[in-house]
Amino acid sequence: MKRKIKMDFVEQTVMLSSAIKWIILAIFAGLVVGSVTGLFLKLLHFGEHHMMKWNRYYLLMPIAFFLSSLLVVKLAPEAEGHGTEKVIEAVHQKDGKIDIKVIPVKLLATLITLISGGSAGKEGPCAQIGAGIASFFANVFKINNTLDRKRFVICGISAGFAGVFGTPIAGAVFAAEVLYVGKFSYIVLLPSLIASYVSCIVNKALGISHLQYAISFTPSNEIKMFLNMIVFGIFMGSLAMLFIRLLNIIEESIHKINIYKPYKGILGGLILVLIVYLTESKDYIGLGTQVINESISGSSVSGVAFLIKMFTTSVTLGSGGSGGILTPIFYIGATAGNAWGQIMNANMALFSAIGMVAFVAACTNTPISGILIAMELFGIEVASYASIPCVISYFMVGHKSVYPSQILVINKS
Amino acid sequence: MKRKIKMDFVEQTVMLSSAIKWIILAIFAGLVVGSVTGLFLKLLHFGEHHMMKWNRYYLLMPIAFFLSSLLVVKLAPEAEGHGTEKVIEAVHQKDGKIDIKVIPVKLLATLITLISGGSAGKEGPCAQIGAGIASFFANVFKINNTLDRKRFVICGISAGFAGVFGTPIAGAVFAAEVLYVGKFSYIVLLPSLIASYVSCIVNKALGISHLQYAISFTPSNEIKMFLNMIVFGIFMGSLAMLFIRLLNIIEESIHKINIYKPYKGILGGLILVLIVYLTESKDYIGLGTQVINESISGSSVSGVAFLIKMFTTSVTLGSGGSGGILTPIFYIGATAGNAWGQIMNANMALFSAIGMVAFVAACTNTPISGILIAMELFGIEVASYASIPCVISYFMVGHKSVYPSQILVINKS
Repeated sequence: MKRKIKMDFVEQTVMLSSAIKWIILAIFAGLVVGSVTGLFLKLLHFGEHHMMKWNRYYLLMPIAFFLSSLLVVKLAPEAEGHGTEKVIEAVHQKDGKIDIKVIPVKLLATLITLISGGSAGKEGPCAQIGAGIASFFANVFKINNTLDRKRFVICGISAGFAGVFGTPIAGAVFAAEVLYVGKFSYIVLLPSLIASYVSCIVNKALGISHLQYAISFTPSNEIKMFLNMIVFGIFMGSLAMLFIRLLNIIEESIHKINIYKPYKGILGGLILVLIVYLTESKDYIGLGTQVINESISGSSVSGVAFLIKMFTTSVTLGSGGSGGILTPIFYIGATAGNAWGQIMNANMALFSAIGMVAFVAACTNTPISGILIAMELFGIEVASYASIPCVISYFMVGHKSVYPSQILVINKS
Repeated sequence: MKRKIKMDFVEQTVMLSSAIKWIILAIFAGLVVGSVTGLFLKLLHFGEHHMMKWNRYYLLMPIAFFLSSLLVVKLAPEAEGHGTEKVIEAVHQKDGKIDIKVIPVKLLATLITLISGGSAGKEGPCAQIGAGIASFFANVFKINNTLDRKRFVICGISAGFAGVFGTPIAGAVFAAEVLYVGKFSYIVLLPSLIASYVSCIVNKALGISHLQYAISFTPSNEIKMFLNMIVFGIFMGSLAMLFIRLLNIIEESIHKINIYKPYKGILGGLILVLIVYLTESKDYIGLGTQVINESISGSSVSGVAFLIKMFTTSVTLGSGGSGGILTPIFYIGATAGNAWGQIMNANMALFSAIGMVAFVAACTNTPISGILIAMELFGIEVASYASIPCVISYFMVGHKSVYPSQILVINKS
């Protein structure tokens, strides 16, 4: 008995010292990553704000994509592609080692892409910047153990996410969920959550505003809603499959064109300019925050918005524009949910919100994060319904993902 | 390209048929388990209500524990112990096979234990009843594939949990989290969630009322709160370690006594009667729902309540009383949080709520469930703070658990 109690004491001491070490490291990561991504977001908003004063800013896309691609090709090829995919790859294949040059290059390339109207997201680059910073400080702090190094880099990723969305829990859980299909990295949960939390505090202090929605709905017939959610989940899962396939097809087609890479940016930019011209709308380019907001506030948006956005996003990312894929996923999910609400004569705000999180859950294989985003953005009542399409669409998408570097751990069926 | 699209189509068909199969099975499990556990809860409330009219009902504990133990020993030894631990064992070691006799025996033994004043929970038995029902229908439906059988039994478990607490998401995630230390069973997520959801609807229709709290607090200094949560998490983790050790010590000590098992129930009952007599209070026996409610509503409760409850629970479960361990964990966590609030001169309601979920997260190694319970019971603001102590206490408790059958998958440090 005495021996056991002594062993308990030893175990507690080990856990305590390990906990304190990681809490301190995570607070540090949260402070630094939160500050850098906060400044990046401020720059981005500033740039967007000023560009939009000029009505035809989107005409700059061909040259912007060219520059963005050139920057990456010349200075930091590692910074290519959408951010989250790259950090997943870095964690799995490079022991979490990321070239420090990635940070400024990614920052600049994404700024250029987004403020000219490229259809991409801001969270992927933030995750990549966060990972880059963590990797740099892992060298400074001489964190040589591979597992510890990876954990610290994942702290950086979650701090990057959380800062952008203002959702500390979903940020941390997303980082723990997104590395694998069918595995949750419990080992990173503690440091990721602390880093996320601190990053959110820093971003708030810097005055970064986040999405915030209040969705009002009167829960009608509960059984009808339940069945509706099942069918909606199947629809969103199939849509995710379609998006992933489209993304691949367009990326591969552009890849096959045999010209100097940055020139492909010009081509991609021209295609998007053409789309703006044909649709007579700037709704399908850029971050699309306004359309997401309209959709979730319950206004009816174009019923084909989600299809066009799939295309513009694939072209932007495939042709050399720099940016993340999560904001477009939010957009596509929300507008698809909105269209569903219109067809079903149901609450458009509710279905937009649920569509948004279910699409994230499916495209990125992160069902728990989907549910948590719903909770943190829309409250528990919406999340309670959203949980069903989140898990169904996650299941339906099978073993595909917008992040091909995710490691497949389970067979879902 | 054509081949790829054809393969996509094939994969979608496979996933869809698998999804539909599991959705139907899960709805069935939710309906049956929800109905049976709902009736059990109704019986329990009815029994409690009538017993409490007699002021000295607790004097029946020795004979009640004797009967409870006798029932189990004679009719279904499998029904021994606290419910959740047994179902974890059944899933891991018996391919999810559970003797059908377990259902009525567990139901009766738990009723006897709880209405006489035994300190135990109602959710463990519900999980066990749910698992038993699912196991029975797995035979009826000829589900012979081991993995599918386990999945179906886990559906039953989550439906049992969710019905008791009225928290479908936390119920499903708890079932997916509790089988292992450091692994999340994504494979059961879809059916578990559907079963939980349906079970909640059934329980609501049967008129079962659930815990529901509204905690009002003005978030003061955010950085101070953040640091406070870190220290509180370390405290709750150490407390969980203490509880697990105490539970083991008392169980082993009683096990060593060389008399016929049911007689041990008499001994245990006498010890609890003595405690009621000495403390002149019935606060530390029974389900303790009233004390949990007082604690979370912000009244100050006895500063040693959590220590006494640890003892009464260990004696009840160790001596042959039948019941779960989660409700006592809720009680201990909430009253410990309340005591912390008193000492720190902080919001007692807030710390009670957070203490409750953090203690669940640590004792049962289920940090995500802890956070989700906080969200579903207390809302997102409380959950946002609660997430920190949940992950820290989960980390601090090391590789211990109130459920020794949990399979250890990771090294936490």
